[in-house]
Amino acid sequence: MAGERPGGVPPVVLDAMGGDHGPAETVPGALSACREHGVPVTLVGRAEELHRELGRYGGLGEVGVVHADGVVPMAERGAGAAAQRTSSLMAGCELARRTGGPFVSAGSSGAVVTCAVRAFGRGEGVVRPALAVALPTLTGSTVLIDAGGTADPTPEMLARFALLGASYARAVLGVADPSAGLLSIGAEPGKGNRLVREAAVRLANLPVRFHGNVEGHDVLAGVVDVVVTDGFTGNVVLKNIEGCVRTTLELVARAGIAPPERLAEVARLYTADTHGGAALLGLNGTVVVAHGSSAATAIARACVVAADLAAGSPPVSDRDVRTARSSSAR
Amino acid sequence: MAGERPGGVPPVVLDAMGGDHGPAETVPGALSACREHGVPVTLVGRAEELHRELGRYGGLGEVGVVHADGVVPMAERGAGAAAQRTSSLMAGCELARRTGGPFVSAGSSGAVVTCAVRAFGRGEGVVRPALAVALPTLTGSTVLIDAGGTADPTPEMLARFALLGASYARAVLGVADPSAGLLSIGAEPGKGNRLVREAAVRLANLPVRFHGNVEGHDVLAGVVDVVVTDGFTGNVVLKNIEGCVRTTLELVARAGIAPPERLAEVARLYTADTHGGAALLGLNGTVVVAHGSSAATAIARACVVAADLAAGSPPVSDRDVRTARSSSAR
Repeated sequence: MAGERPGGVPPVVLDAMGGDHGPAETVPGALSACREHGVPVTLVGRAEELHRELGRYGGLGEVGVVHADGVVPMAERGAGAAAQRTSSLMAGCELARRTGGPFVSAGSSGAVVTCAVRAFGRGEGVVRPALAVALPTLTGSTVLIDAGGTADPTPEMLARFALLGASYARAVLGVADPSAGLLSIGAEPGKGNRLVREAAVRLANLPVRFHGNVEGHDVLAGVVDVVVTDGFTGNVVLKNIEGCVRTTLELVARAGIAPPERLAEVARLYTADTHGGAALLGLNGTVVVAHGSSAATAIARACVVAADLAAGSPPVSDRDVRTARSSSAR
Repeated sequence: MAGERPGGVPPVVLDAMGGDHGPAETVPGALSACREHGVPVTLVGRAEELHRELGRYGGLGEVGVVHADGVVPMAERGAGAAAQRTSSLMAGCELARRTGGPFVSAGSSGAVVTCAVRAFGRGEGVVRPALAVALPTLTGSTVLIDAGGTADPTPEMLARFALLGASYARAVLGVADPSAGLLSIGAEPGKGNRLVREAAVRLANLPVRFHGNVEGHDVLAGVVDVVVTDGFTGNVVLKNIEGCVRTTLELVARAGIAPPERLAEVARLYTADTHGGAALLGLNGTVVVAHGSSAATAIARACVVAADLAAGSPPVSDRDVRTARSSSAR
């Protein structure tokens, strides 16, 4: 098994059976993280299959393998198969908790959330963890939260995602006093579906700089540091952005007004290969959820992001926010 | 008042007080529809203010004015002020019903739906009307429905939006047997929030070619002819696309790899100036809802679209679909 990296963070634990492609992409991804980025990785999954894949890349002995029998199907939403101790997902979470290493999976978001909560436990004061992803905007970066963790949050959960997102913006993007906007269908207060209208009332009373509602066109405009939404809308928006950037660049390419290889530079800003997946915030541990369709490059990137988050001070609790705010004497 | 247009469709009735800018944009928009596109328009709103604006453009007498005192605030969601007979919105709907002309408003979508249902009544078999917009894709066009009419539909309403969307795709895009996808957070059956999971079961039993779930990145890829979603998600996605296209093109412009004026051609594909707003389907009348932020060009375009829809055979009922399907002997 690979040793501790220089920064003192134990190896990244990777759910090798997760994602649409399983070991065919997770194994070369782990090797790339290790070889090209110096990030040690431990693979969790069917040992025989993993050793065979490692052998194909001449990588036997370069990354550790811990055997786990079960595979959680991508269609799995919650408990069920995912909760079985023998699944690579659950076994991986348990291993990461024991070793203190960051955990990465490209499995079904809902199943990852279920297992990660069970293994790591929630941070102090956290009602529900949420997936955060930092998106490049015209002015810097915006944190989108929840990007797919909880499809049906309560208004209280939704409001409190703002605290996790602000904590992330502070820790990872270095924004001193992040603003948070609630994603809705009109800027005016009172606009939205029932969930958003009830969450808005609660959000206004939380210790975070609440901007009010933002709309779909504000997400990439950099209007706020944190865009707060439920996991259903957030996941649709995240994937919509990926598709929309692709389509727009394809239309530009077809118009023959820009060299395709230069357009690819812009495209890369919004692919999982670059952002490396979403961080699951609010747990007593570092967890990164990669896109289900992740190829090796995206898996490698997710491992690097996880190692960086674990080496820094990832926000594990919305308590950080309250502490920071009360000490700034607002 | 302007006379009937050649095609025999009465003048477009325009809620002149609707939208973020009111008469400052609706009046020049109406004049542009009339002068440049040959579409007669009747303005409904505060007569004194409208005549003053018309005077500024030398347009007195070119378009008709029908006085209405009240203005529905953009923050208005449902009944309340909107339902008052005296509002330009409600008075406009009533006038359009009486004359048989198409109706256009840039007012709050929720308020327009409330008033339009009251004035025109629902088409046969329609549980809830929905807003449809045709988006250009890499392969043609996709109908997004509901783009903001009902923020909290029931599963039954959501499923039946597929019928209205298919009817629109057939009538306006000329697709013989449109496919419909349910917007969700995973392609696998059973993925989604509660609303989507329940709607999927119902949709599978409706007389429409149900593709299954589609995801955010599929919307502009042209995977299906109709993307079915609730009015909250649909509105967020529609505006997200607008913002995302803008941001992507701005990043390309900043990279200095394409001439800005050529990029503007791509940008125009996804602005309200081009698509002209969303058609409110499922009513016994033609109703187009323009973007609240519409400038004169977008208002003019919405009037032209409304006139075209009314002149053709706009789908007013999901009965069309059932009839078409049963006669095609599938």
